[in-house]
Amino acid sequence: MRYVVGIDIGGTNIVAGTVPEDGSELVGLVSEPTFPEQGADAVVARIVKLARASVAAARGKEIAGVGIGAPGPLDTARGVVLLTPNLGWTNFPLRDRVVQALGLPATLDNDANCAIFGEWWRGAARGANHVVGLTIGTGIGGGIVLHGEIYHGASDIAGEIGHMTIDSNGRRCKCGNYGCLEAYASGPAIAARAVEGIEAGAETTLPSYVQGELARITAQVVYEAAHDGDAYALDVVRDTAHVLGAGVANIVNVFNPEVVVICGGVTLAGDRLFVPLRSEVKRRAFKPAVDACRIVPGALTGTAGVYGAAAVFVKRTWGRL
Amino acid sequence: MRYVVGIDIGGTNIVAGTVPEDGSELVGLVSEPTFPEQGADAVVARIVKLARASVAAARGKEIAGVGIGAPGPLDTARGVVLLTPNLGWTNFPLRDRVVQALGLPATLDNDANCAIFGEWWRGAARGANHVVGLTIGTGIGGGIVLHGEIYHGASDIAGEIGHMTIDSNGRRCKCGNYGCLEAYASGPAIAARAVEGIEAGAETTLPSYVQGELARITAQVVYEAAHDGDAYALDVVRDTAHVLGAGVANIVNVFNPEVVVICGGVTLAGDRLFVPLRSEVKRRAFKPAVDACRIVPGALTGTAGVYGAAAVFVKRTWGRL
Repeated sequence: MRYVVGIDIGGTNIVAGTVPEDGSELVGLVSEPTFPEQGADAVVARIVKLARASVAAARGKEIAGVGIGAPGPLDTARGVVLLTPNLGWTNFPLRDRVVQALGLPATLDNDANCAIFGEWWRGAARGANHVVGLTIGTGIGGGIVLHGEIYHGASDIAGEIGHMTIDSNGRRCKCGNYGCLEAYASGPAIAARAVEGIEAGAETTLPSYVQGELARITAQVVYEAAHDGDAYALDVVRDTAHVLGAGVANIVNVFNPEVVVICGGVTLAGDRLFVPLRSEVKRRAFKPAVDACRIVPGALTGTAGVYGAAAVFVKRTWGRL
Repeated sequence: MRYVVGIDIGGTNIVAGTVPEDGSELVGLVSEPTFPEQGADAVVARIVKLARASVAAARGKEIAGVGIGAPGPLDTARGVVLLTPNLGWTNFPLRDRVVQALGLPATLDNDANCAIFGEWWRGAARGANHVVGLTIGTGIGGGIVLHGEIYHGASDIAGEIGHMTIDSNGRRCKCGNYGCLEAYASGPAIAARAVEGIEAGAETTLPSYVQGELARITAQVVYEAAHDGDAYALDVVRDTAHVLGAGVANIVNVFNPEVVVICGGVTLAGDRLFVPLRSEVKRRAFKPAVDACRIVPGALTGTAGVYGAAAVFVKRTWGRL
């Protein structure tokens, strides 16, 4: 059995793991902060160090190559990161830098694509033909897997589902568009909505979770309070389910996928989110498309991107998964 | 050279034509009203009559089969129309009825899929890898062609782009959802918007086009008045471009296609629609995705569905186009 190192590069952390070509396990899982402010060379050095640490921890496996997932936009064919605001890179030949340092072949794909491909390969969307997924965190990323392959579009930009307009006269989004899904349902958007309500006088225990410092309320804190039964936090989760439902209904009507998988911290909200989300999608989308589709949380918490990055290497190198 | 009869079945008209396997011409173009109220048997008889008339007009061509495009939802593998409100059919084995009557093999696909596939094969989207298209008429249909193949999704429902929500708290759509693109940019929606404004006191020459009977204002009439320089009609066209722009921007961000092709009567508005539409998409969507994409009117007015239905037969029967 040949093994592949999967590396998931985020703005906050880099995660690496070693996966056999059949994806049956993940060994040597290691992680470190990214510290992008130290510059590209330092980040590459950290990637290389983590890859070596993962290989060492995986002990004696035959390593065939490295799959890298990074924020985009990318040029996947050339292995170049065109631009990442989070990392501060422009036209950076990430793949070849890793190849040179490790002496192993490598592939590069978008981080959200990798996460959804990982969920398709070994997670919540296993066995499906067509999967569309969202990764909800600081932003909302998207990945599209059709006929078991990542769909990249004409110039590797496909899948910007977070920047689908669901309210054309709505809030301005960081991307310049108006009413993007991300402007309502990203982690920071959920936290901001919670804080707005508190400032407008909502009764809630939320401030007690952050010693009264409202600026420290995150989406995670909202889920925690909802879990503890805070009625206002539950309302915020339900509102999130409604806006997310409009976006997922669009996906269901346009892609008619077998699975919509939702990854990221938002899955911590569990059924409090997924039950109203599913009923909102049912209310909005075409019945035969709804009937054909499962809407599920990601199953590979923290490792979907590693599995998926490795899967991209396997698929591109050996032609199948 | 083998020939295929393409048949495009609409709620108003049936159009048939005969196309060689390389799509290089369309001969024997014939058409008749559908008269769906006469029942399925009468419509099938008319389809068969038109197919024969087209073959006769095409004179001496070797006919290999028939491609049928019909409103859905369909089961394309079984050749069954599951449900068409416009035609009043439920679980109707359209393909096999045509096969029996004509003694020729046949294929069935969705009418909007066929129109966009036709534009990809022989029209405005020729040569592109990834094409997403809209057919704007009484409703808004959609077709998705990826890697040169129609994308059908898990249960043949994919491509319902007209029912993408662009305003989640917006107008209720006939489909039950809220704020669908179709509720703002279909022919009747454009006409209704024009009439609302007139009733609210807008100054315009539009009523003179319909002898003062506002109920007779159609989208076509609005385009005609815009063409003649009526400032209010021009405003209605520009508003249409804006809502359509939000929908097309979603397509561009999600699919990153090489071409977005827009078919139907709306193309009569020409640059008055397409210039503000392109600038609205540019304002909303990601630059690398916008840069990779042409937004164009369909080139095969009235025959895209015939070409596409024939193309589906060619592709499924001989594996390539």
